[in-house]
Amino acid sequence: MTQSSHSMLHPKPLTKEHFAGFGDVIELADANPIEINDGNCLRYSDLAAINIDDTGKTGISLFDAKAYISPLLLTYVERHPLGSQAFLPTNNDPYLVIVAADNNGEAQAPEVFVTSGYQGVNYYRNTWHGVLTPIESRSLFVVVDYIGKGSNLQEFEYATPYLIDFGSI
Amino acid sequence: MTQSSHSMLHPKPLTKEHFAGFGDVIELADANPIEINDGNCLRYSDLAAINIDDTGKTGISLFDAKAYISPLLLTYVERHPLGSQAFLPTNNDPYLVIVAADNNGEAQAPEVFVTSGYQGVNYYRNTWHGVLTPIESRSLFVVVDYIGKGSNLQEFEYATPYLIDFGSI
Repeated sequence: MTQSSHSMLHPKPLTKEHFAGFGDVIELADANPIEINDGNCLRYSDLAAINIDDTGKTGISLFDAKAYISPLLLTYVERHPLGSQAFLPTNNDPYLVIVAADNNGEAQAPEVFVTSGYQGVNYYRNTWHGVLTPIESRSLFVVVDYIGKGSNLQEFEYATPYLIDFGSI
Repeated sequence: MTQSSHSMLHPKPLTKEHFAGFGDVIELADANPIEINDGNCLRYSDLAAINIDDTGKTGISLFDAKAYISPLLLTYVERHPLGSQAFLPTNNDPYLVIVAADNNGEAQAPEVFVTSGYQGVNYYRNTWHGVLTPIESRSLFVVVDYIGKGSNLQEFEYATPYLIDFGSI
């Protein structure tokens, strides 16, 4: 019997409950809107905890990301010590959200989620996460994160990569 | 001969050049991306000048706005003294962008633009602007603006409303 070289992971639906501790799920569900503009617009306010180091500033950027194909070989995760990082899709296609708990600076086993229709995420400062991973189409995302000259990227390479199977989504 | 009660305005295409002084046009055109994530993603960084009063904080919200039909009767504009306000569409439908210069606290005649495909806007702090105005479909927007308890809304009512004709778009 040979040992399998990779653990196979399957995405679970992204929910606020499962994502607690890693970041915010930015969505209309469970939010309480207020009516503005004479009833023509619903405002769902303040859905993400922005936390940006004062060595820089909060910025708005656009990320144009290629789609990945299943199975995805996850070799590393990254984190940003100087700020939270929010991703908001400009379409309704799902994408993977990969996060991992930390233990003394080392990422633990990844947890893999898939978004359903319109869901954004805001990774808390220092949350280990995978790179932006559309799975249906090349996609444009609005990103709100740290802009500045500080050293804001740390990477953790897994001793044994993980395979993520999302072929049935 | 009777006097026309309303001036009829026709939207012009939104460009950075025409929008200078009012805010930022958030788009990929003319921006210089960097490659990240092993070449799988282009990052267009820092496309808007966020300016939020320190009586509050920068927040991420979602606006769910109904579409308007042509002609639109523009009776007032508004502005936010405590912060810039960015709107980023989550679809590729056009919307109107209405702004006006200020003269001693009074809004001047409106200038009317229409977006083309994917364009976000960031109104500078204190720029007079019309409310969020999708014209094709009910649309969801990401909004980055002031969150706090300060008094952040001023309105200016035009003595004579304007009619905006976008029926041919």
